Amino acid sequence: MADMSDLLNLSEIEAVARAGLNPVYADYIAGGARDEITVRANESAFERLRLLPRMLRGGGKRELDVTVLGSRASMPILVSPTAFHKLVHPEGELATARAVAAADTIMIVAMAATVAVGEIAAAARAATGGHGALWFQLYIQPDLELTEALVRRATDAGCEALVVTVDSPALGASERNRRNGFTDLPAGLACENLRDLRDGEPGHVRQIVMSPEISWEHIDWLRRITSLPILLKGLLHPEDVRSAVRHGVDGLVLSNHGGRQLDTVPSTIELLPEVVAAVAGRIPIVLDGGVRRGTDVVKALALGAAAVGIGRPVLWGLAAGGEAGARRVLELLREEYDHTLTLCGATSARDLTPDLVRGVPQ
Amino acid sequence: MADMSDLLNLSEIEAVARAGLNPVYADYIAGGARDEITVRANESAFERLRLLPRMLRGGGKRELDVTVLGSRASMPILVSPTAFHKLVHPEGELATARAVAAADTIMIVAMAATVAVGEIAAAARAATGGHGALWFQLYIQPDLELTEALVRRATDAGCEALVVTVDSPALGASERNRRNGFTDLPAGLACENLRDLRDGEPGHVRQIVMSPEISWEHIDWLRRITSLPILLKGLLHPEDVRSAVRHGVDGLVLSNHGGRQLDTVPSTIELLPEVVAAVAGRIPIVLDGGVRRGTDVVKALALGAAAVGIGRPVLWGLAAGGEAGARRVLELLREEYDHTLTLCGATSARDLTPDLVRGVPQ
Amino acid sequence: MADMSDLLNLSEIEAVARAGLNPVYADYIAGGARDEITVRANESAFERLRLLPRMLRGGGKRELDVTVLGSRASMPILVSPTAFHKLVHPEGELATARAVAAADTIMIVAMAATVAVGEIAAAARAATGGHGALWFQLYIQPDLELTEALVRRATDAGCEALVVTVDSPALGASERNRRNGFTDLPAGLACENLRDLRDGEPGHVRQIVMSPEISWEHIDWLRRITSLPILLKGLLHPEDVRSAVRHGVDGLVLSNHGGRQLDTVPSTIELLPEVVAAVAGRIPIVLDGGVRRGTDVVKALALGAAAVGIGRPVLWGLAAGGEAGARRVLELLREEYDHTLTLCGATSARDLTPDLVRGVPQ
Amino acid sequence: MADMSDLLNLSEIEAVARAGLNPVYADYIAGGARDEITVRANESAFERLRLLPRMLRGGGKRELDVTVLGSRASMPILVSPTAFHKLVHPEGELATARAVAAADTIMIVAMAATVAVGEIAAAARAATGGHGALWFQLYIQPDLELTEALVRRATDAGCEALVVTVDSPALGASERNRRNGFTDLPAGLACENLRDLRDGEPGHVRQIVMSPEISWEHIDWLRRITSLPILLKGLLHPEDVRSAVRHGVDGLVLSNHGGRQLDTVPSTIELLPEVVAAVAGRIPIVLDGGVRRGTDVVKALALGAAAVGIGRPVLWGLAAGGEAGARRVLELLREEYDHTLTLCGATSARDLTPDLVRGVPQ
Repeated sequence: MADMSDLLNLSEIEAVARAGLNPVYADYIAGGARDEITVRANESAFERLRLLPRMLRGGGKRELDVTVLGSRASMPILVSPTAFHKLVHPEGELATARAVAAADTIMIVAMAATVAVGEIAAAARAATGGHGALWFQLYIQPDLELTEALVRRATDAGCEALVVTVDSPALGASERNRRNGFTDLPAGLACENLRDLRDGEPGHVRQIVMSPEISWEHIDWLRRITSLPILLKGLLHPEDVRSAVRHGVDGLVLSNHGGRQLDTVPSTIELLPEVVAAVAGRIPIVLDGGVRRGTDVVKALALGAAAVGIGRPVLWGLAAGGEAGARRVLELLREEYDHTLTLCGATSARDLTPDLVRGVPQ
Repeated sequence: MADMSDLLNLSEIEAVARAGLNPVYADYIAGGARDEITVRANESAFERLRLLPRMLRGGGKRELDVTVLGSRASMPILVSPTAFHKLVHPEGELATARAVAAADTIMIVAMAATVAVGEIAAAARAATGGHGALWFQLYIQPDLELTEALVRRATDAGCEALVVTVDSPALGASERNRRNGFTDLPAGLACENLRDLRDGEPGHVRQIVMSPEISWEHIDWLRRITSLPILLKGLLHPEDVRSAVRHGVDGLVLSNHGGRQLDTVPSTIELLPEVVAAVAGRIPIVLDGGVRRGTDVVKALALGAAAVGIGRPVLWGLAAGGEAGARRVLELLREEYDHTLTLCGATSARDLTPDLVRGVPQ
Repeated sequence: MADMSDLLNLSEIEAVARAGLNPVYADYIAGGARDEITVRANESAFERLRLLPRMLRGGGKRELDVTVLGSRASMPILVSPTAFHKLVHPEGELATARAVAAADTIMIVAMAATVAVGEIAAAARAATGGHGALWFQLYIQPDLELTEALVRRATDAGCEALVVTVDSPALGASERNRRNGFTDLPAGLACENLRDLRDGEPGHVRQIVMSPEISWEHIDWLRRITSLPILLKGLLHPEDVRSAVRHGVDGLVLSNHGGRQLDTVPSTIELLPEVVAAVAGRIPIVLDGGVRRGTDVVKALALGAAAVGIGRPVLWGLAAGGEAGARRVLELLREEYDHTLTLCGATSARDLTPDLVRGVPQ
Repeated sequence: MADMSDLLNLSEIEAVARAGLNPVYADYIAGGARDEITVRANESAFERLRLLPRMLRGGGKRELDVTVLGSRASMPILVSPTAFHKLVHPEGELATARAVAAADTIMIVAMAATVAVGEIAAAARAATGGHGALWFQLYIQPDLELTEALVRRATDAGCEALVVTVDSPALGASERNRRNGFTDLPAGLACENLRDLRDGEPGHVRQIVMSPEISWEHIDWLRRITSLPILLKGLLHPEDVRSAVRHGVDGLVLSNHGGRQLDTVPSTIELLPEVVAAVAGRIPIVLDGGVRRGTDVVKALALGAAAVGIGRPVLWGLAAGGEAGARRVLELLREEYDHTLTLCGATSARDLTPDLVRGVPQ
């Protein structure tokens, strides 16, 4: 295995990961919906933004940590939910959880994890220096009792917030997966959070249902059955963002699902200013989609995000070097974020104001 | 022959079709006027538009069907007129008609079809589950009695509307065809709608005349001799669109002839908002040019089109797999349109409003 | 030699010409100043403009001819001055003149022609159907008596206008020529218009001087010594264009010298609207730079040019096929212009209005 | 060694230099921060600007020289500070100084020079025709007495101004250098300006410290301890530019450190108009970053710069041909600047007004 410390940026880690992975799984991770226009837009939109740093501000100790909805993280870089970590590494989400705990940040555990959230939580607690927080990503199921049982599981495991994915009234269409015939998990892998959930024969794993029936009423229902903070992940239209505030939602994950749901939706960073205006400071926004550099983190924070999430890079890290690989991804981004703060004359996210960001003139 | 169900999108079908076709005919289909700037613009303009979906709207049963000028279609995706289907498949327009009837949508029969409209209509009626409508595309001929005979033929065959192509005062200049020496149809193929039309020796096929003399007075004349709805196909200038409304035209096909007439005209999707404003809701607009994805359909409908038309993709389908290939094209687009509606939180075209579409910020 | 009629557009003629030419001379023709940014901009700017044709206007006989400053041309496509035609064909400007006369348009004879203007005029008069007009391109020389002698020569030869190049206070810097060591004309070739001009030993050819001293006073002087119409070629700044009107100049050739003088100046077509506004209809504007298609001609005329000029294409034609090649270039453009008029619903340049042209939306 | 006079532009000199250099050092010079987006932006931003020259202004003798903060230069093209000239040529900064003196312009000696400023000054004085001025580039060190000693050294050597780099609260991150393992200077090379500076064992060379603690108070302190003009190099935010004026700074070097500090900052030429507006004529601005052509010089001056600086090109010249190579770089730019002035109808920088520059229309 490559020595992780030799890998200098997320792009190099991805290259190592791809070289060692089953191409079908690499396609599954890298791919997105249809022509993958949004997949590419997420990254290119960051490149089109320019930073205008401040100078001679006299430094002082940098503070990288943030607190989002009561969960503290040692840096404003969270781990967005991604499915099936065991596809790329035998330890799966356990390795990820240890890496995230060591980095002392927040892991948003995917409902489609290949390790149950309780075991993930135990691994995180047992990790070296482990004290990162867990949030739980949820697809609300039409079967509300099932959904409630899932919420209870996540709550019992110590998850501190629920991230409800709302952009999936149907599964996104990855033509790469269809071409590769990748439709089922390999033997031995399953969505463990849905095993032995409510009645049924022991060991049975339920299917995740993505239903267009899910509506704001379901959000209201969820609000009533849990006291955990609720974030909605996947709203893109400013009208929907305003609805979220009206429905008492606690936060947003501004995400286009990494370009895996509807192709040709805008990149998240280009939507951020409008979404920030729509929430008007009432609730925090975590942005994911295309974050690959410390400068990307600073751009998102300067434009109003409370934190960013990364998805694919964690999987590439996991594939390239297991727990050490995932940790390398997080530490590289931390170093880059710290370095970018310094070069911007900032000591914390509070110094990052919208005037530091410019579009590229045409 | 490739199994049509293995082909995952229109681009794959085109690739299979090209691999099996005489390159001269493939060039004839794919090509356009001069430098083909407009051919490329039609597709790239859709890619530059972004969709902003709505979430949590609670679904409900999707309704894909639309009614345009009294003709019902099971989806807002029509078949635009294209010439010479027998060039790419021995069954020619008969196969196309069966595929369109099976898909239960509208086929705009080309005046330059290699099967007479009456036979096309019979094939459509006899098709499995066949009940799609036929419209007839017409180049008004300077010889008005000839034109009237053609209109009668189309009417007698059961065509429900006339689509008058107005962008062809002269034939477009395909340099591909000139380079390939492709000037005449192969032996045995002819524009069958012009066979035995009015006097002349039996079996004689008249030439289609494209004349710059055709004017609004011809449209007024046509209005008087037929009670079928009249759509004009090919108007691009907003001033002309306003004239069409004043002349009592029933609908428009917003089309640049697939980039085959005047090179460097704008893509149709970029003209759509202005054309929609010019008609001010008085008459429906069908848009064609570059529609290759369900997201393209949704973008056009959200910006005000009543339906879209596809041209080349049907020919590629026909070339790749005859009737089954053409059907695959229509079914893929239907699936994609349905999927896109779902992911946009919409249940029918009525939910598709202009705020769902954005240009790409620069 | 290739059969000229097999060549379908100007790009194909250029390809044939380059294949047969000494690469040093091909570089001399194709090249421009420094990084050739303006050379490329001239062509790409036309591609970025869109045409919005009118339909159903009822045709009528097309009139292609125009009259510019009293000189009639059978089409609004003139031949811009280019130097050294004998470099690419032994008959040099004689062949060009015959081709232009046959096409019945205007040839702007270059001061740096390798045939004297009197002989060019004789060849034009003797050409098949020859009755094209000649204009004479002039670099005003600091030696005014020499300049006056040149003007007299051109006048005596029957030139109907003077085109004074004003963008050359110094020779442009072609790094291609420097790299190729192309600094002198091959033996036997000379600027024949400067042979035996005023005193000096018989046969002596003077050097063309490009001097920064030339100023508006020289234009005023020229105005006094000739009654021929004077056009200035090479003004780009709107302030200078207004000065030209004030100084009583009769016309402009809006030209950036084919990108051969100052690199990174704008394409001429993008400057045209501003220059048209600056002259406010007082004097006609001939535009050259990047005209390669009939659609380019229509775009320039619609935006206000009285005619266009072509430079390099004539040389490529000459190199590819001598007089026949140059004629093919002119006839192809005429056909394309005629065809574009038809497809735009126009019968003459008078129908070409600015609303027919659009920029490409971003 | 290549004959310098065969090299026709800066790009050819760079190619020759790279061919002969250790690739690790070539990467060190060419590279920049992270993804090098700003490195590329510096050059491409100039290409996106267009020049609109004036004509017929009647020339007159051109004056290329400028005076900036009391230092005269024979042309408005200075040598920006770059480190470690001995990496690319054994004579290092001595050769550079001789070339700059011969060109009679200003060399901004880098604090990280591999020759002490006193020796550089001696070499400049002894050069053929040498009378170029020296300025000294300074990283203010947290150890103020050390800084003061450095300032004294530069002053004693005859430097006429101090250029304080303020964009380096930390070292920029060149991933090329990390990949190449280039972390230390080869044996025998050192930052000679920091040798034997204040106490410590004889021969000891101090490390340059880049500290985020440096603030406006340090600028005020420097203002008090020296009477030399002070320029700040690296301010990008207009707010910081206004602060500089308020703090009594004498000039600015508008620079993004060649894209070597914070990646994705804007190109300097695109920031220039705003920075010019912010200083409102109170202090002169020298711009560096991407200047490779005489047209670039004219664009910067027309938009308000007092002069430009070049960095990498001097190093490529030095690598390609030592003193003669650096001189060739300076003479090529001088020739191109002179030529561009002529072609713009200008005789000195005073004629270069903002209306001569245009953005590229989209």
